[in-house]
Amino acid sequence: MARLFPSLSRKRNLPPGTPVYVGAPRAEPVRITVIDYDPDRAELRAVDTPQDCFAYRDNDSVTWINVDGVHEPQIVQALGRHFGLHPLVQEDILNTTQQPKCEDFGDYVCLFVKMLQWSDDADGITSEHVSLILGRGFVISFQQRSGDVFQAVRDRIRDNAGRIRTMGADYLAYALLDAVVDGYFAALEQRAERIESIEAELVERPTPTTLAHIHRLRREGLMLRRAVRPTREMTAALDRGGSALISPEVAPYLRDLYDHAVQVIDTAETFREMLTGMLDTYLSSQSNRMNEVMKVLTMIATIFIPLTFIAGIYGMNFQHMPELTRPWAYPAVLGVMAVITLAMLVWFRRKRWL
Amino acid sequence: MARLFPSLSRKRNLPPGTPVYVGAPRAEPVRITVIDYDPDRAELRAVDTPQDCFAYRDNDSVTWINVDGVHEPQIVQALGRHFGLHPLVQEDILNTTQQPKCEDFGDYVCLFVKMLQWSDDADGITSEHVSLILGRGFVISFQQRSGDVFQAVRDRIRDNAGRIRTMGADYLAYALLDAVVDGYFAALEQRAERIESIEAELVERPTPTTLAHIHRLRREGLMLRRAVRPTREMTAALDRGGSALISPEVAPYLRDLYDHAVQVIDTAETFREMLTGMLDTYLSSQSNRMNEVMKVLTMIATIFIPLTFIAGIYGMNFQHMPELTRPWAYPAVLGVMAVITLAMLVWFRRKRWL
Amino acid sequence: MARLFPSLSRKRNLPPGTPVYVGAPRAEPVRITVIDYDPDRAELRAVDTPQDCFAYRDNDSVTWINVDGVHEPQIVQALGRHFGLHPLVQEDILNTTQQPKCEDFGDYVCLFVKMLQWSDDADGITSEHVSLILGRGFVISFQQRSGDVFQAVRDRIRDNAGRIRTMGADYLAYALLDAVVDGYFAALEQRAERIESIEAELVERPTPTTLAHIHRLRREGLMLRRAVRPTREMTAALDRGGSALISPEVAPYLRDLYDHAVQVIDTAETFREMLTGMLDTYLSSQSNRMNEVMKVLTMIATIFIPLTFIAGIYGMNFQHMPELTRPWAYPAVLGVMAVITLAMLVWFRRKRWL
Amino acid sequence: MARLFPSLSRKRNLPPGTPVYVGAPRAEPVRITVIDYDPDRAELRAVDTPQDCFAYRDNDSVTWINVDGVHEPQIVQALGRHFGLHPLVQEDILNTTQQPKCEDFGDYVCLFVKMLQWSDDADGITSEHVSLILGRGFVISFQQRSGDVFQAVRDRIRDNAGRIRTMGADYLAYALLDAVVDGYFAALEQRAERIESIEAELVERPTPTTLAHIHRLRREGLMLRRAVRPTREMTAALDRGGSALISPEVAPYLRDLYDHAVQVIDTAETFREMLTGMLDTYLSSQSNRMNEVMKVLTMIATIFIPLTFIAGIYGMNFQHMPELTRPWAYPAVLGVMAVITLAMLVWFRRKRWL
Amino acid sequence: MARLFPSLSRKRNLPPGTPVYVGAPRAEPVRITVIDYDPDRAELRAVDTPQDCFAYRDNDSVTWINVDGVHEPQIVQALGRHFGLHPLVQEDILNTTQQPKCEDFGDYVCLFVKMLQWSDDADGITSEHVSLILGRGFVISFQQRSGDVFQAVRDRIRDNAGRIRTMGADYLAYALLDAVVDGYFAALEQRAERIESIEAELVERPTPTTLAHIHRLRREGLMLRRAVRPTREMTAALDRGGSALISPEVAPYLRDLYDHAVQVIDTAETFREMLTGMLDTYLSSQSNRMNEVMKVLTMIATIFIPLTFIAGIYGMNFQHMPELTRPWAYPAVLGVMAVITLAMLVWFRRKRWL
Repeated sequence: MARLFPSLSRKRNLPPGTPVYVGAPRAEPVRITVIDYDPDRAELRAVDTPQDCFAYRDNDSVTWINVDGVHEPQIVQALGRHFGLHPLVQEDILNTTQQPKCEDFGDYVCLFVKMLQWSDDADGITSEHVSLILGRGFVISFQQRSGDVFQAVRDRIRDNAGRIRTMGADYLAYALLDAVVDGYFAALEQRAERIESIEAELVERPTPTTLAHIHRLRREGLMLRRAVRPTREMTAALDRGGSALISPEVAPYLRDLYDHAVQVIDTAETFREMLTGMLDTYLSSQSNRMNEVMKVLTMIATIFIPLTFIAGIYGMNFQHMPELTRPWAYPAVLGVMAVITLAMLVWFRRKRWL
Repeated sequence: MARLFPSLSRKRNLPPGTPVYVGAPRAEPVRITVIDYDPDRAELRAVDTPQDCFAYRDNDSVTWINVDGVHEPQIVQALGRHFGLHPLVQEDILNTTQQPKCEDFGDYVCLFVKMLQWSDDADGITSEHVSLILGRGFVISFQQRSGDVFQAVRDRIRDNAGRIRTMGADYLAYALLDAVVDGYFAALEQRAERIESIEAELVERPTPTTLAHIHRLRREGLMLRRAVRPTREMTAALDRGGSALISPEVAPYLRDLYDHAVQVIDTAETFREMLTGMLDTYLSSQSNRMNEVMKVLTMIATIFIPLTFIAGIYGMNFQHMPELTRPWAYPAVLGVMAVITLAMLVWFRRKRWL
Repeated sequence: MARLFPSLSRKRNLPPGTPVYVGAPRAEPVRITVIDYDPDRAELRAVDTPQDCFAYRDNDSVTWINVDGVHEPQIVQALGRHFGLHPLVQEDILNTTQQPKCEDFGDYVCLFVKMLQWSDDADGITSEHVSLILGRGFVISFQQRSGDVFQAVRDRIRDNAGRIRTMGADYLAYALLDAVVDGYFAALEQRAERIESIEAELVERPTPTTLAHIHRLRREGLMLRRAVRPTREMTAALDRGGSALISPEVAPYLRDLYDHAVQVIDTAETFREMLTGMLDTYLSSQSNRMNEVMKVLTMIATIFIPLTFIAGIYGMNFQHMPELTRPWAYPAVLGVMAVITLAMLVWFRRKRWL
Repeated sequence: MARLFPSLSRKRNLPPGTPVYVGAPRAEPVRITVIDYDPDRAELRAVDTPQDCFAYRDNDSVTWINVDGVHEPQIVQALGRHFGLHPLVQEDILNTTQQPKCEDFGDYVCLFVKMLQWSDDADGITSEHVSLILGRGFVISFQQRSGDVFQAVRDRIRDNAGRIRTMGADYLAYALLDAVVDGYFAALEQRAERIESIEAELVERPTPTTLAHIHRLRREGLMLRRAVRPTREMTAALDRGGSALISPEVAPYLRDLYDHAVQVIDTAETFREMLTGMLDTYLSSQSNRMNEVMKVLTMIATIFIPLTFIAGIYGMNFQHMPELTRPWAYPAVLGVMAVITLAMLVWFRRKRWL
Repeated sequence: MARLFPSLSRKRNLPPGTPVYVGAPRAEPVRITVIDYDPDRAELRAVDTPQDCFAYRDNDSVTWINVDGVHEPQIVQALGRHFGLHPLVQEDILNTTQQPKCEDFGDYVCLFVKMLQWSDDADGITSEHVSLILGRGFVISFQQRSGDVFQAVRDRIRDNAGRIRTMGADYLAYALLDAVVDGYFAALEQRAERIESIEAELVERPTPTTLAHIHRLRREGLMLRRAVRPTREMTAALDRGGSALISPEVAPYLRDLYDHAVQVIDTAETFREMLTGMLDTYLSSQSNRMNEVMKVLTMIATIFIPLTFIAGIYGMNFQHMPELTRPWAYPAVLGVMAVITLAMLVWFRRKRWL
């Protein structure tokens, strides 16, 4: 299970704006790819050093620089310096615990989001810190590691599908955000399946494992909510912000994105309430079972304890017990016992225990 | 029971605005009907192709185009192109998981709502995605399937009942929304009946089935709330929006609609709290029963265990037990047992267990 | 108990604004009374038809038309037409499920409230839909049935008590609203008495009936809240609304009314939390009793089961049990039993079970 | 315990603004004292009739008229008429159930607060309705009874301590409010002590009395919250209100007062959550004890019931039981019993019941 | 554990603005240090009296006066008088129970925060009242005791690391606040570790001690929340306040600080919900164990009580019990007992108790 608080060992005692990587240690090299396109052509290139991207800043086509890995601060710094990013922005790019937010610096807009993906290895949802820098004619995206939800966007640029090649960098930023939010839907879908299978289990045969699953899903829901909830504010800020970098043509798309974010949050909330309801169901099924167990015990004890007492009476060794010598005494006692048993059963039936 | 998350398998990896149907697969053909009316006449026509409706866009009468079925994207696209709908709107029309919202595009206003109907087949409330496009002189409504709550509106147009024939397309859109909200009242009425019958059951004889019913109603309530809650914002946006498409004459009707939406949400909230209260009642009735069962067990055990012990004492086979030979010993032991029993009963009475 | 959802069988499938009575069927005739007054005189008259009131509209004195019964739509319609009420207002007057609200139509202000009264018959609070129309020089009030909280206002007009005869129709409307809100205090007083008596019961001797009473009061509280809560918004809207019909002299009274409404809601909320607290108290007292019952059972069983086992040992019929022939064996076994009992009691005392 | 709803028997059926005392009946005479001061002198005088205060209205010094007792409406009326108070204000002064509020009438500002004091007699917090009227050069304070939190203010005026003698009536009103809010801190301190002593009890040895104390503190907390919560709005209104009666010099003091009010409310909320947490702790400690009791019962029963059964077997009187005649049979049975007991103990250990 | 309400014994009965120390008594002497720097040099000096700092007020370099200990009011007063602090500000500096807030007095801005640090002695988080006064060219910080989170800031000034030496007093104030908020992250990290270790314990082997730990962490969380929550409002006020003392260059840093504050609060909330979830988990694990215990008891009792009864029957001493003389009777009874036992086991298996 992903740790709720992935890395608190922040770079304390360093000046604000110091570019230090905060996150799980990683060994793999940082990969940088550049996609440059205009309506007529699209070029995809893997580059070796940040410096290889510098030329793209000032050309007229739209450039998307994607950086897989933020564990090498000097790469972020090199790009940051060339593209004019504030030191605090560089710090936030490197800080994988940064919460989602949107900040407009005039020349560029920064978007920090969490990219959620289902991982079969972790048997759960993994979260990745993604930073998007929208500038004049370029978008830079930073991810924690390789593997993302952006493949469809790349394909659309390559295949000239949809409007993407005819639009500017603002539309590209929107398309990337949209892919992230679509990824939320995928993660929710996985959760929905889990929840429904546990719900079925709950109805058929609840076990302590069912409970453990519910608790685990609730815990994961907390993480999910922390990642997803700020997205609404972020998209709203982007839409209303009135940045000069965002053309009016893109506005309806941003509103659509906002709607999706609202829907994601709403669905996550609904799941949360469902899980609470399932917990209640589990606890009351437990209480039902306990009640049933107690009733069985009570019925057995209530019938047999008096009978055993009667048997005990006639097992006493007093010399003067006249009943013991009567030939009809034994059957009579057995008869009395049968009557007592029947009376008990009738009484249980009346109390609706049977 | 309707799935809470009906279809998450969204058209991921497609450009935004791509018209793709999202929802349960349907085989039946899409039906299109056109109602065209002015104060003097009303014409109802079933048409075969979207193209048959195109002529109605520019005439002076009010036109209502109703499309039953959104599982054929090309129909929505054809209408969308002719009536000038933004690709994102077309996408939302086709997406049956779209949450209710109201968007003003200047030339037209889009309204997405959930139409709730009681279904005897599903033994519950079914939800249907309905899109209303209010343009200059026309309303286009898209539904997921045949069967709706709009029959009364059709009848009023046909019979020239009320003011509908004398008003414009804005009033028609209002009338359709009003029918949807009236449908919410009908669904709530069904829920009210259910809740009241379960409440009676709860008072008379609660069983685990009662609990299951409560949990099911709560789960359905979550779905209901997701469908109903955005309606308030939507009608408020419509009323305050100041769209040029909505005449001042219709404003009081919209305010009335807003009041109804508020009342629906309020009632749904009240039901929710009632169900929570019923759950509490059930759990405390369970706890009461458990208490009663435990008391019976404890009383039986507390009376008979000591008595059985006494009988056990005199069942021992020691050779030197002088009491065993006394003639008065047996009645004396029985007497002691009777005294113990009486003392116990008095004690239980004091503790108010009896 | 009043039904929470008194009548959902709304006039569906009818055009909006159609005047249809929505509520419990009533047979008694509708009673109309007119009170016309100026500083010098006051006249009270029962009239037979709505038409008898028409003349009062245009005179200079203040006129209060009170209609007991809204189950005859034609009466509301007749008055509505003459006094210029919008069809939707007429509809709301006839709809006894209408939630409280305040609407300003320029020429008149509509106020819909719930009049709460304690009913000994129902052994609970009954709710009545009351509509007040404040126009220039007149107030029309519609009630569901005879019997109201307005008698004191009538007396004050008749006896020229306080300032009412010297003020206009706006003050009359305020006085009626104030009487309704005073009625809320009376209803709350009844609730307070109930709650305090149940609280005493809870401390002295809680029974399942106590629980049923708590649940009933909570359910009633839901109804109360639905009736009372909108009153605050309503009075605030009236105060801030700046209607030309309301003179500045009346403003402090409206603010006072607002304060009362806030106090009513606040008190209702406090009662609600008290009931929740009482439910908790009940459940923990149940749990305490259960604990006590279990302790008794466990102590009895823990002491006697081992003793009975020892007696059982010496009740066995083995031929070679040397103890059985010793003369000191029987008293020795009795002594051992006494020691075990004492040890158990000491142990219970240590565990604080005694 | 103070009644939560001290007096609902309002002066119903009387015109609004009728001066009627609402509260617990009181017999003691109303005491009026006047403090008149300027930077150079301070005079304290007990007066017999309201008329004795009238002269102070128009002098240049600051006058504080304090009235202990509002159960004689004619006194409030006499003062009200001379100092120009609106009838509704007089009504609110006399109504001890009035919630805290601040109203600006231009010529004077009315402040209604609850004065909380710890009472050893009631073993709890008592609440007193206090009205402050701030006019040009005077403050009138009305209290329910003698004994208040204002002694320190009186001393400061008499001793010329702090800035009070050099400031105007606005500062005096602030000083009185500040004394009331300081009284809240004192009441919270008493609560804090109670809560901490009960918390200690909860850890060491929780009993049903502990629970009763928690419930009582929660109930008292409801009353406290009703009294304290409106104070924040009240002080904020006073600060922002921009009344001409309040000089800019006093503004920082009012902001300080506001901070204190926020802190009081915040602390009360924290206490509330602590009490909820303590209730949870109590309930889970109960559940722990129950678990322990059940384990003891189950272990005793599980060990001895099988043993008793074996003893019962060999207590049967069949003639053909070959074991009974074997000399080694008795020790063998005892051995088997010992083995069973040991096996059970090992099993309990494994299940971690021991 | 730190007391939740550290010191309520406020200086009641004193004029507002009287400088009185409110807090735990301290004996150690107050230490004052001055750091004076400009881009070219930095000077650190420990001074003996407040008067030694006075000269720094009017120089051109940035001065940071740090006061460790606020238990000597005359020191605060001396500084307050020279630097022109309002008496109420001096009072708040001395009041260690003051809640965090930000106040702008034009010439200077006051910031009150809580500095949280992990203390191994207290085995918990300790809170310290810190006041920051930002004036033109100077910052004065007051702390309750020696030992703080500011060492890194001192080092950066000394070593000329980062931008701090090139910026003004506003940046210094920001840097100190940032250090405080970084301290919150450290405290949260400690909490995160605790929570995770308890969570592991909860899964492996929950004991009543686990519960006590959860309750303790929740209680600490209440204190934490009170300290941390106002920080958000405070930083927002600072950012939006538009004080002339804060240069535009510092604005992005303040926004960054605000983000951190939001993240801290968010994390604290998440921990709170996790703890609530853990409490639920504990209680349901308890309920599971209880269920298991009850099942064992019920199975043992249900099997052996009937068997013991049968043994009791044949232990009776009636003279006419024909079965007793039959040679096959004993093995037959044993057989019947075995059959009963098997039937019971099958039944338990069916009920899924085994």
